[in-house]
Amino acid sequence: MSFQQAPHKLLVIPGPIEFDNSVLLANATPGTSHVSPAFIPVFGDCLRLLKKVLYGEKPGNQSFLIAGSGTLGWDATAANLVEPGEDVLVLNHGYFGDSFADCLETYGAKVTQLKAPIGGVVSESDLVQALKSKKFKLVTITHVDTSTGVLAPAGRYAELVKQNSPDTLIALDAVCSVASEEIRFDDWGLDVVISATQKGLGVPPGLSVVLASERAIKTLEARKAPVGSYYISWKRWLPIMRAYEEGRPAYFATPPVQLIYSFREGLKAIVEGNQSLEDRFAAHKAASNKIKDGLAALGVGFVPLGREISANGMTAAKYPEGVSAADVLPKLAELDIVVAGGLHKEIATTYFRIGHMGVTAVNTERGDLDKVLDGVKTVLDAARAKK
Amino acid sequence: MSFQQAPHKLLVIPGPIEFDNSVLLANATPGTSHVSPAFIPVFGDCLRLLKKVLYGEKPGNQSFLIAGSGTLGWDATAANLVEPGEDVLVLNHGYFGDSFADCLETYGAKVTQLKAPIGGVVSESDLVQALKSKKFKLVTITHVDTSTGVLAPAGRYAELVKQNSPDTLIALDAVCSVASEEIRFDDWGLDVVISATQKGLGVPPGLSVVLASERAIKTLEARKAPVGSYYISWKRWLPIMRAYEEGRPAYFATPPVQLIYSFREGLKAIVEGNQSLEDRFAAHKAASNKIKDGLAALGVGFVPLGREISANGMTAAKYPEGVSAADVLPKLAELDIVVAGGLHKEIATTYFRIGHMGVTAVNTERGDLDKVLDGVKTVLDAARAKK
Repeated sequence: MSFQQAPHKLLVIPGPIEFDNSVLLANATPGTSHVSPAFIPVFGDCLRLLKKVLYGEKPGNQSFLIAGSGTLGWDATAANLVEPGEDVLVLNHGYFGDSFADCLETYGAKVTQLKAPIGGVVSESDLVQALKSKKFKLVTITHVDTSTGVLAPAGRYAELVKQNSPDTLIALDAVCSVASEEIRFDDWGLDVVISATQKGLGVPPGLSVVLASERAIKTLEARKAPVGSYYISWKRWLPIMRAYEEGRPAYFATPPVQLIYSFREGLKAIVEGNQSLEDRFAAHKAASNKIKDGLAALGVGFVPLGREISANGMTAAKYPEGVSAADVLPKLAELDIVVAGGLHKEIATTYFRIGHMGVTAVNTERGDLDKVLDGVKTVLDAARAKK
Repeated sequence: MSFQQAPHKLLVIPGPIEFDNSVLLANATPGTSHVSPAFIPVFGDCLRLLKKVLYGEKPGNQSFLIAGSGTLGWDATAANLVEPGEDVLVLNHGYFGDSFADCLETYGAKVTQLKAPIGGVVSESDLVQALKSKKFKLVTITHVDTSTGVLAPAGRYAELVKQNSPDTLIALDAVCSVASEEIRFDDWGLDVVISATQKGLGVPPGLSVVLASERAIKTLEARKAPVGSYYISWKRWLPIMRAYEEGRPAYFATPPVQLIYSFREGLKAIVEGNQSLEDRFAAHKAASNKIKDGLAALGVGFVPLGREISANGMTAAKYPEGVSAADVLPKLAELDIVVAGGLHKEIATTYFRIGHMGVTAVNTERGDLDKVLDGVKTVLDAARAKK
């Protein structure tokens, strides 16, 4: 079917992002049974393709796709892997680190936080010292904290955890990084990657996306206290996910059928498209550099304290001296460009956020990046002319 | 835009169901920010229109629309309204009663169950006796248990709870009844209605749909133990839902934007269409009678023990003597008609399930009901001719 999505403003926030027509059309798949022969392989494909995106195809790894938001992946990690009273170390790079800690505490974890300065990352020495001070069941890392645009050196952190506390599980909050930043699940020895569909994966929101290691599944199986949550209990979902991966239907709760069709389109574009995954990451880096260099040339600064710890899928840009949110956000919207305001509560009014993930970064023929830079130049010029 | 959904088999299971083109097209809405001026009134409309569908517009009632499945509404009820150790009475009419009890126990409730015989409903005297035996914080009722097609007399049960234990909260699991069975939220004095989009509401799956009373919200606010779940905590969602209803953006976790657009289309068709809600319920009753009378004429019996306790949105039909699932389910699929097998574990192989909700019941010009009856006649004739 020929399908063209409706005309709309360019969506360049750090997720949801712009979608391919094929992805949107799949989200309009007619009514289909969640246990039908038509649907089972689609769900199975999603479970398998996700592992490819994360370089996590080691046998024993398990994908979980469950109706919910990215946030629900925190619940899954906290409820399934941590027992009440166990110690968890949270590497906190902003708003989403705070919230993940809050989630873990809801499920009874004893949380220690290493808080990076705003725009910075937790230092390696602080991490090592913390790991030596106490036995942690789990370390959590926010890979890209969407509130600051900071990219944490997740691979290096994982290496340090392996060296200093090999039994400690590692969970990566990769909601804003999967498919726009390199993640090597098996090589890094990660135990959980938490994500969602609406960012680098380029699919509408509504699906909690998780990959768990065999070690994580064994941890679940060995737990003494019952899982303190019903819907997100992996004990209930494990047989369901395994069944779909093996081509059999199974039921615990109705999956979001249309969104799963859509997700398959998104994953196929990433894994089976013309570009390799490496090309995709390089395209995001190039897009990021283009946006950041372009903004810098307009006199804009950044929240992250260095380019090497800046996300490649988004940019947190400070309003220049004398320019405010009112000069930028609504004015860009008038130019049909939708960016996001600040989120980190201590600095929210001082910066704005631009997403450059998925088709915006990779399908350069769309011209999204130039449109954004031109738009920002226009509104900054106008703001400065007012003074 | 002119949009026609792709050709497909007729989906007549007890949910997901067939969708209108307008509903599917809305699920393919282009990338839109969850806090944009475009989206805020759409979310607000959904929150408001849901109250209309449930006759629950009393000030203080609160709708919750959260990415997840219908099952997540159980978590919401259990986690937010029941504190560990408190007594809950579950009126159990099959598979979904068992599971709701399991969910409540996960959150620490002390559950007493009144289990109806298969195909029957809990008797009024058993309910009254149970209410007199103990002080229950909450009574739960499965309105239509999708595993048996039994319709519980929810209004009458609620009346008995009011008379015998007025402080007890009442939660109705209406996943398979909202918009196909009459529910009078305010008149019946319900405190929670739990539903999902993919059944009588006629929208793709992926959204947990809940209406809570002012009394439920006050119960939440007065609780002593913290809510034992993070994602589904109403303390986190309450300000979000209130904001969207008042026309302001707010953020806790990303809502399923496309599905919310789709849900608005579905709700508008129900509330603002040519038919009144009463007409809609009458159309479902007429569809149900047509299917059940037609099946009976073909020698098919039913799981529910009487027509007065049979759902109007679905039918649980027993295979006639000498006919098996293999004679019916795949053969109907070959005729492009998708029905569902049995689900209640004690009788799963002895019956099949037909959904007749939403457009299938209301838009009679589609001819879905005749197609189903003709199909069943064809496969039963073939099965009988084989003998």
